[in-house]
Amino acid sequence: MAGTDKTRAAEFAAGPAPAVILVAPQLGENIGMVARAMLNCGLLDLRLVRPRDGWPNPAAESTASGALAVIEGARVHDSLAEAVAGLNRVYATTARARDMVKPVLTPRAVAKELRAAEAKGEATGLLFGPERSGLDNEDLTYADALVSVPLNPAFSSLNLAQAVLLLGYEWRLAADETPERALAVGDSRPATKAELNSFLSRFEQALDDSGFFHPVEKRYIMVRNLRNLFQRAEATEQELRTLHGVISALMGAKRGKGPKA
Amino acid sequence: MAGTDKTRAAEFAAGPAPAVILVAPQLGENIGMVARAMLNCGLLDLRLVRPRDGWPNPAAESTASGALAVIEGARVHDSLAEAVAGLNRVYATTARARDMVKPVLTPRAVAKELRAAEAKGEATGLLFGPERSGLDNEDLTYADALVSVPLNPAFSSLNLAQAVLLLGYEWRLAADETPERALAVGDSRPATKAELNSFLSRFEQALDDSGFFHPVEKRYIMVRNLRNLFQRAEATEQELRTLHGVISALMGAKRGKGPKA
Repeated sequence: MAGTDKTRAAEFAAGPAPAVILVAPQLGENIGMVARAMLNCGLLDLRLVRPRDGWPNPAAESTASGALAVIEGARVHDSLAEAVAGLNRVYATTARARDMVKPVLTPRAVAKELRAAEAKGEATGLLFGPERSGLDNEDLTYADALVSVPLNPAFSSLNLAQAVLLLGYEWRLAADETPERALAVGDSRPATKAELNSFLSRFEQALDDSGFFHPVEKRYIMVRNLRNLFQRAEATEQELRTLHGVISALMGAKRGKGPKA
Repeated sequence: MAGTDKTRAAEFAAGPAPAVILVAPQLGENIGMVARAMLNCGLLDLRLVRPRDGWPNPAAESTASGALAVIEGARVHDSLAEAVAGLNRVYATTARARDMVKPVLTPRAVAKELRAAEAKGEATGLLFGPERSGLDNEDLTYADALVSVPLNPAFSSLNLAQAVLLLGYEWRLAADETPERALAVGDSRPATKAELNSFLSRFEQALDDSGFFHPVEKRYIMVRNLRNLFQRAEATEQELRTLHGVISALMGAKRGKGPKA
C-alpha cells in the first residue's frame, strides 16, 4: 500500500468502530483474511482470544493482502472476559439461536445499534467463534445479543472472514452516503437537452433524406421510438459528438464517398 | 449435506435468481469459495468464461465445502458474449468506475433492480473479473450497469468469493422477511405480566423481610429501579421459576438452613 493510500485508509477508519474479537481462531490464514475484510470495512481493532497457533503468525500476514495495520495492532487475550472488559455492548455471531434466552438480530439491525451506541460514546465489539465449531454456549453468555445472518438455512455456515465481512459491511453501510445510482461519465459530462435535440433533429433529417421512413405514415411513431431510445441512453456531450460523426460517415458512404481520412 | 438439507437448500434456492459469471477466473480454490458463497445465498447458476486451469477443477471441489450442486452444474463458455446470451439484464462488478459512461450502482440498489427484473420474468446475471485484474473495459461493455461496493476507498479490493457473497447477500436480503430483532427463548416462552408481577411481589416481600430497604425512604425508588431492571430483562416463564428458587435458597441460607437437596 502506498503512503497516500495508508493515509486515506486511516481517514476512512477514523472514529469509533466495533472491535472484532476472534475466540480461539484455528488457522492463521483465516486470521489474515479477517484482517483484510476488516480493513475493507474500515475496522482496525482486532482481539484474539487464545489463538490456537500462537501469535504473531506468519500465515496470517501472508493472507492479509496488505492489511498489516490490523495484523500488527492485534492484541492477544487469555480469556474472553478480558477481551471484552472495556466494552459496553457486545454482539455474538452464531449460525443459529441455541437453547438460550437472548435477543437475535439481523446484521443490519446490529449495525444500527452499533452506530447508536457509538454515538453515545459506548465501546462496542463483535464476537466470532472458532472456524469448526463457532462460539460455545458459555462464550455467548458474554454477549448482549446474538447476530444471525439470514442466509440459506440448509447451507448457512460462513467462512470466518466472510462473517466478519458481512457484519463490517453492514456497519459501514449504516453510515454510508454513496448514492444508490450514479452515472459515471468519464472525462465528459451529461449532454444538455439542447445538444440532444440538436442531434435528434439532424438524425431525423438524415433519415428523411435517406428514405428510411417508409411507409411515411409510420414516420411519427418511428421518430417517437427513436427519440425515447436516445433519451433513455443518457448520452454525454462526447457521445453525441461521436454520433454526429457516425451520421456524417454513413451519409458519406451512402453517397459513395469513403469516410474522411 | 444430508438429504433433508439438500431438499431445504433446493427450496431456499427455488425461483428466479441471477447467474454468477466469472470471467477468466484464475484459481480453482477461488471458484470453489465462490460456489460456497453462492449456495449460502441460494444462487445455483455458475458460468465460467475461459477458466485459466480448465474445468472441472479438483481444487474448486475441495474449497466448495459441500456446495457441489453449484460446482457440478457450472457451465463453461468460450466468450462472455456466449455466457450472457440468454440474459436480459447484466451487472458488472468493478472496484472503481473506469473511464466510460455507465450507471454505477450500490449492491443494495442492484439487488432491488434484480428483484424487479426477475418479477417481470427477465433473466439476470452478475459479472466478476479475474482475481488479479478484475473485468477489463471490453468486458464492461457487456453490462447494463456497474456495481461498486462502497467500502474503504484506499483498501477496496475484495477477494472474489467475498464480492460474490456481498452481491448474493444483498440480493437475498432484498426479499428476506427475517424480523430485525427477535427473542430466542429456547424451550420456554416469554413470561406473562402476571407471572412477572407475582415474582416481583415475592421479591419485594423477601427484601422487606430481610431488612434490605434501608433507609426506608429509599424503598420507593429502589423498588422502581429493580422493577425496571426485571422488565427490561424480558424474562421467560422458566427463568422466573429459577428466580423464585433463588429467593427461596437465599432466604433459607439467611435463616441458617441449607438449600433443599
